[in-house]
Amino acid sequence: MISPQLTLPRQTLADVDTPFLALDIDKMDKNVARLANKLNALGAAIRPHLKTVKSIDASERILANKSAGATVSTLKEAEELAAAGFNNLLYAVGIDPSKLPRVMALRRQGVDIAILLDSEHQAQAVIDACTETDIDIPVLIEIDCDGHRGGILADDPKLLQIAAILEPRQLLRGVLNHAGESYSCDSPQDLIACAENERATAVAAAKNLHKAGFNCPMVSIGSSPTAHFSANLKGVTEVRAGVYVFFDLVMAGIGVCQIEDIALSVVTTVIGHREDKGWIMIDAGWMALSRDRGTARQKIDQGYGLVCDLAGVPIPGLIVGDVSQEHGQISLRTDSTAQLPQLKIGTRLRILPNHACATGAQHSQYHVFSAAQSEQKTDSETQQLAVQAVWPRIKGW
Amino acid sequence: MISPQLTLPRQTLADVDTPFLALDIDKMDKNVARLANKLNALGAAIRPHLKTVKSIDASERILANKSAGATVSTLKEAEELAAAGFNNLLYAVGIDPSKLPRVMALRRQGVDIAILLDSEHQAQAVIDACTETDIDIPVLIEIDCDGHRGGILADDPKLLQIAAILEPRQLLRGVLNHAGESYSCDSPQDLIACAENERATAVAAAKNLHKAGFNCPMVSIGSSPTAHFSANLKGVTEVRAGVYVFFDLVMAGIGVCQIEDIALSVVTTVIGHREDKGWIMIDAGWMALSRDRGTARQKIDQGYGLVCDLAGVPIPGLIVGDVSQEHGQISLRTDSTAQLPQLKIGTRLRILPNHACATGAQHSQYHVFSAAQSEQKTDSETQQLAVQAVWPRIKGW
Repeated sequence: MISPQLTLPRQTLADVDTPFLALDIDKMDKNVARLANKLNALGAAIRPHLKTVKSIDASERILANKSAGATVSTLKEAEELAAAGFNNLLYAVGIDPSKLPRVMALRRQGVDIAILLDSEHQAQAVIDACTETDIDIPVLIEIDCDGHRGGILADDPKLLQIAAILEPRQLLRGVLNHAGESYSCDSPQDLIACAENERATAVAAAKNLHKAGFNCPMVSIGSSPTAHFSANLKGVTEVRAGVYVFFDLVMAGIGVCQIEDIALSVVTTVIGHREDKGWIMIDAGWMALSRDRGTARQKIDQGYGLVCDLAGVPIPGLIVGDVSQEHGQISLRTDSTAQLPQLKIGTRLRILPNHACATGAQHSQYHVFSAAQSEQKTDSETQQLAVQAVWPRIKGW
Repeated sequence: MISPQLTLPRQTLADVDTPFLALDIDKMDKNVARLANKLNALGAAIRPHLKTVKSIDASERILANKSAGATVSTLKEAEELAAAGFNNLLYAVGIDPSKLPRVMALRRQGVDIAILLDSEHQAQAVIDACTETDIDIPVLIEIDCDGHRGGILADDPKLLQIAAILEPRQLLRGVLNHAGESYSCDSPQDLIACAENERATAVAAAKNLHKAGFNCPMVSIGSSPTAHFSANLKGVTEVRAGVYVFFDLVMAGIGVCQIEDIALSVVTTVIGHREDKGWIMIDAGWMALSRDRGTARQKIDQGYGLVCDLAGVPIPGLIVGDVSQEHGQISLRTDSTAQLPQLKIGTRLRILPNHACATGAQHSQYHVFSAAQSEQKTDSETQQLAVQAVWPRIKGW
């Protein structure tokens, strides 16, 4: 199931030099299938946000059909995905007009890339550039549904003004929103309400455009939390989600997944002890784990990550309590009644990330393994931890 | 002064696609000279910690003599620096014995690389490996001076036990400590006391070794804050410091530098506005700025970075108040009496980082410019912002 040319049969999670990023491909496959099945049942397409994986190999695994839609957060991702044959892309960050030549170049190559904007200034810059080059770029208007980031309100008069600017070349493809506030939810009721608000706001904006005589074929919504708690997707054409393919401690804290669904971890080695302080020192600091503290505001603060053994089983009470660049300090969570375990120098551990997008971004590649696949073959532990592929990550902008 | 083969004369900070990392080489040169002059006057060598720059080009600029000592935080840095001719290295993270083969390989190439440890277990693993291969690796024992991270106390009986384990092959080269708590200081008196404690602790450990009959030729101390506030370096052979070459908002908050000394910034573009919220949206999120919030505990909280115009002059009251992956939200600092300025879409800004090591780590290269050099030539603003070189960064472990 994993490209054979990348197979490195002699390496396992027990012998690649630490720290490194380990990807449990079976968990990823399960997470991908879970959301696809859910959205399929609700009648909406999924447009995965590939900013989380930033990998051609992972993208090919997530999207069997390269003409099915994908979302990107940088033009670098778009360019690398386009070179690999993906040809239906949405660049979901408000467009800086000086980046339009790179968008044009992709469209000239036959890539159907759409862009996002929320101002008349941007709309005018886009139509001017399209008129000048005679290359049309489809546009989504960003709608705000919860005051989280950019976008205009669904009933803002600017919505129709922007649409009118785009009309001469019929650049308007649709509307897009993102329930960023869903990351602050922690009950199913709140998440369901948040998902319905995201849906209803996007649909209302599309209706306002329709009523004024504009075409609005695409209604794109999404965040990983709302995507999993949507009860109804009426009027929505597609749902975007990114971190759902890996999941992480923030998603587990919100209640979107279980700890055991988390597919991404950082493998690290014990390099010292401070018995007087109750610390176990590891060779994964913020350079390997990231500085993300997304669980700090949640009910369970996971520090800089939850500590598991090399097989991926959490060790009771243990978190990475603090980090410097290349050092991590493992300690017991303050409310833990567990004992600090004896972990000798050289012991390998796996750290589950607060935020998979941020932890992934600290690394240049994934070491992919398949514990479940091996289990079926009743393999030894070493074989279960065999690295089946190394997938490079896309870097830069 | 900058390698001509890397010159890209047509690019300036105004036209490289944002976000990107800009390095003011004149400020870096000044910062490097400042500490070198200070330590020279106090009679100690400097061993720059190249974990901050992670760049061969920057290392060559900092260290004219490639046999002068340098510090690294990963074996990847050591290997890349060795390939470029640097041959006097200290790997300043407690050794994981499984990494010894890579250290041996460097020593076989003629690189004088030393390692760090703080346990009998590690010392035994090192001497066993050296005995087996007949390649000796010099060892520094890590000493704790302020309870910040790893290391043993200067009077811990383990100090002599570790030295005794290393004695048969005379592997002991010295002692090392790091006043990590100096980052929490904010008065000159505290910093001077912290520096003296760091010095005195390392010297005490060396004396304990001498008294017991062990050689301890190297006494290595250092952190950027203490290095700048040392009043006396008696008994110290070398001082390590890393972030001083760039400086950052955390260092300015501690009082080690001024805002105008900061050599590193992220160039970004305005991509939207939320007048209702008082936000200006930019295309630099945590992917470009990092998640580091090191100023959150300081007197002045700089959010995710201080906002400057493209010439590098701070805009009163403006910080990056929040970030998502590829979005930054500029807002006024809560205590600011300034007005939110009108910054049109497309406006370029420069964001000064909380922590230069962390922000640098988010990027694959530096765009190097020389504003001061251009000023002398009374160049136009465009020429002042000309990119004179692109320096790649070392990635991974």
